[in-house]
Amino acid sequence: MSDFKRRDFLRAVGVTGGAGTMFAAMGALGLAPTARAADAEPAFTAPRASDFTLTGRAAAEVVIVGGGIAGLTAAYELGKAGYDCTVLEAGERAGGRNLTVRGGDTVIDTHGGKQTAQFSDGHYMNTGPARIPQWMITMDYCRELGVPLEVFTNVNASAYIHTSRTAPDPVRFRTAKADVYGYVAELLAKATDQGALDKELTAADRERLLEFLRDFGDIGGRVPDDPARSWRYTGSTRRGYRTDPGAAGTPGTVLGPVPSVSDVLTSGVGRAFSFEFGYDQAMLMYQPVGGMDRIPQALTRAVGERKIRTGAVVTRITDTAHGVTVTYTHQGSTRTLDADYCIAALPPNILARTPHNLGGAVQSALEACTPDSVAKLGLEYRSRWWENDHRIYGGITNTELDLGVIWYPSHAFHAERGVVIGYYNFGRDADAYGKPSPKERERRAVAQGVKIHGTKYRTELRSSFSQHWRQMPHVEAAWHSLEGGPDAARFAALTKPAGRVYFAGDYLSHTVAWQHGAFSSARKVVGEVHRRVVG
Amino acid sequence: MSDFKRRDFLRAVGVTGGAGTMFAAMGALGLAPTARAADAEPAFTAPRASDFTLTGRAAAEVVIVGGGIAGLTAAYELGKAGYDCTVLEAGERAGGRNLTVRGGDTVIDTHGGKQTAQFSDGHYMNTGPARIPQWMITMDYCRELGVPLEVFTNVNASAYIHTSRTAPDPVRFRTAKADVYGYVAELLAKATDQGALDKELTAADRERLLEFLRDFGDIGGRVPDDPARSWRYTGSTRRGYRTDPGAAGTPGTVLGPVPSVSDVLTSGVGRAFSFEFGYDQAMLMYQPVGGMDRIPQALTRAVGERKIRTGAVVTRITDTAHGVTVTYTHQGSTRTLDADYCIAALPPNILARTPHNLGGAVQSALEACTPDSVAKLGLEYRSRWWENDHRIYGGITNTELDLGVIWYPSHAFHAERGVVIGYYNFGRDADAYGKPSPKERERRAVAQGVKIHGTKYRTELRSSFSQHWRQMPHVEAAWHSLEGGPDAARFAALTKPAGRVYFAGDYLSHTVAWQHGAFSSARKVVGEVHRRVVG
Repeated sequence: MSDFKRRDFLRAVGVTGGAGTMFAAMGALGLAPTARAADAEPAFTAPRASDFTLTGRAAAEVVIVGGGIAGLTAAYELGKAGYDCTVLEAGERAGGRNLTVRGGDTVIDTHGGKQTAQFSDGHYMNTGPARIPQWMITMDYCRELGVPLEVFTNVNASAYIHTSRTAPDPVRFRTAKADVYGYVAELLAKATDQGALDKELTAADRERLLEFLRDFGDIGGRVPDDPARSWRYTGSTRRGYRTDPGAAGTPGTVLGPVPSVSDVLTSGVGRAFSFEFGYDQAMLMYQPVGGMDRIPQALTRAVGERKIRTGAVVTRITDTAHGVTVTYTHQGSTRTLDADYCIAALPPNILARTPHNLGGAVQSALEACTPDSVAKLGLEYRSRWWENDHRIYGGITNTELDLGVIWYPSHAFHAERGVVIGYYNFGRDADAYGKPSPKERERRAVAQGVKIHGTKYRTELRSSFSQHWRQMPHVEAAWHSLEGGPDAARFAALTKPAGRVYFAGDYLSHTVAWQHGAFSSARKVVGEVHRRVVG
Repeated sequence: MSDFKRRDFLRAVGVTGGAGTMFAAMGALGLAPTARAADAEPAFTAPRASDFTLTGRAAAEVVIVGGGIAGLTAAYELGKAGYDCTVLEAGERAGGRNLTVRGGDTVIDTHGGKQTAQFSDGHYMNTGPARIPQWMITMDYCRELGVPLEVFTNVNASAYIHTSRTAPDPVRFRTAKADVYGYVAELLAKATDQGALDKELTAADRERLLEFLRDFGDIGGRVPDDPARSWRYTGSTRRGYRTDPGAAGTPGTVLGPVPSVSDVLTSGVGRAFSFEFGYDQAMLMYQPVGGMDRIPQALTRAVGERKIRTGAVVTRITDTAHGVTVTYTHQGSTRTLDADYCIAALPPNILARTPHNLGGAVQSALEACTPDSVAKLGLEYRSRWWENDHRIYGGITNTELDLGVIWYPSHAFHAERGVVIGYYNFGRDADAYGKPSPKERERRAVAQGVKIHGTKYRTELRSSFSQHWRQMPHVEAAWHSLEGGPDAARFAALTKPAGRVYFAGDYLSHTVAWQHGAFSSARKVVGEVHRRVVG
């Protein structure tokens, strides 16, 4: 797959999902409606035991292949109505890509390479999903399951933007925004005031726009009879201070000098801004206290541990006239499980190479799902130099390096130690970091990070752990790209049952790579199974 | 004082402080320098016991009048070197305006009105300072004193902007930004592409600007030979969704219709954006876990409780030839305390009416400090409807109502209950809410909030507590405005000692109304006393 950055990926998902092209006609005001009522998901009602009392039917047996978020959720929701669910999970623990790594945790990759994390107590790395937007139903599951939440620091005015043109020194988001917004305001105010937009705007709108721009860009006002000196951006306290304001006698010194508009445009810092405007990346965002795997842990408790068989590698799925037979290996022996229905909640790339009798259309659709490469590195430091020296308490530094981004931890502020995400990259960058040994990955990433943070990025390092999802047994992909989205004709065989087998996973949603997609897809399939059984 | 909004106040402080006019010449790049090294405060070295070993001098006795942040900090820092400090605090507890109110806490105002908070366990209201920017030394004191921190949710894309032109429905920040930035990008791109800025920008810069604007505003590109259809903003997924994207079959429905540029400009939503660009308001921000008063509590422990005399109302400060005599009342009797030095760390309005022999210049300067009105209302709800119904997890809704803003709590997400700040207003608005009884304040504020949030704003209410700083005994001001800033000539008598009496407080800093100002001012005075004693 091509090399792209996270925001490009997210844009691509939005586009292929078709979401950006649909507008509902709402309200009469003409101004953004919303508010007052909840922006609800399409209503989902969990199956209930009472749904069976009038039908005379009994809850069915369901075998669920794959104990990731989709599989666990299917078992959880069906369990509410008394369905007899068994989850077959190939790995040694449930949760799938929702994997939090703590000190002592070991991962053996598909090449047999073994890593054991050395993180200190209380410090961890979410190797898969790590952030939750407020609108996603992941929040609802956290509430329902009693998983405490805290803010995930997705954006920070004090974090850096690093581009080849800002080198050797990176620039803080706050400074970059002050300059870019300042010049944008100056340029638009000048063009407006000089009549360039008279066809677009009424006189009253022009004045409103100028008033907004003065505030937005912190620019000067109109200088009568002197257009050249009007509306000028000449810097702002918003840039930040070289010496902070303090007591009397210490008014502080604003960062300067202010670069020219040409320098600002050439630097490319503005490319980093739109990330936080996205519907799925805008702050505030959240994370479970203690690690993202608090979610699958809570789901596992709710489902019942005895219903989840780990180390169970499915070797065949057979749809029969009246049920489904799933064959799997467990502790060296081959077993079969018969059930009324099967929910295949494993990754499509893994399912594609699992023997089945679900037909050529299913197989073609599975093979059309393109696995994506994503990699993450956790660097544990013996001091929190990013807080103490740089005064960056959480957030993300944006780079043009092959690291993609650097994340500062969203918890344990002021602790002795902390785990920084040293890269979170995609495509070719992820593949490139996946090839060498963990030690070499660390060496390369640290050499890059030193360019931004100086030598402490190397000297304070305590240990590291790197996760490359294409090399994760039983997963082998960070997520999947479905060209045209899950509703495209080529994937139609996966969005309906194949006999008594249903398909679930974030790849069959319009929010690929988010737990929300897995939850949503599981809910959809649960509803379909339940209506068939009750109905 | 005039009625102004918080951001105007903050701008005023910046201007009067002169901070916005000073630029340091730094670096050769021309692009914002910073980074790599810490943006450090002017170095402060706490006094040490060892500072006395070579001088033959002994640490002095210091009486500190006022047990707010400045007074406690002075005692804490001087205590490190063995100074014998006594803090005289007029109120029943140390902390000053750093006051967290919890269930059972009682405040009796200057009119004798009594309120006892009914908040549930784990819920509270920071009636004074409530947020900490990353750069302020308040963070350093939290680290040094072991006060755990969590994110204060100062900005939230899902929170609302309410203006008279958005009524009846408020608009979410994310939607307002998508539209304003979209049209700003469209207008500037059109002007640029049509040559209006050819004198300002090179051809290469124009292309860079257009590339930035496409991303910044999520606008269309150039349509060859059709300027009218080029660079158009026609909506964006950034507006948010009416129906969220979910499983296959549910691509989601983007909020619409998109208002016209004229409607967007007329709505005035853009006025709410610049708040978060400010050096002291930009996210990320922080708060102590459990309440802001964890800071004075930790300072009190560090100073030693026996050194802080509460209920001690100072009635006279007398500078003598060789020391200072402070007279105060305590439990009905009058007492005196002699010391080598005095640090007057009480509010200037209170000090101004305390008899002293510090001279007319001191008295004039004290009287030139203008007390400001600020009010805050805490509303405890029996459900977290803002999270469950509106999917607003923290953050601030901006209004044009006399409430100023509505704050959603930054902790205990998904708890059963929560405390919303129902108003945080200034000047005339604060005074207006201060006049009626607490019950009537609640009634008025709830009637306003219902306009934004609907009836649950009333029906889910459990109890309230309102704080009006002009009515707080021994304080009688939220903060003080010093015209021209603390370094103006009229305040010169306060920024140097009057004999053996020193003055400290946030009002004598360039960050009025922030604890950082109190910490900074205390450090300055501690340094001055110590240098004088060590000689």
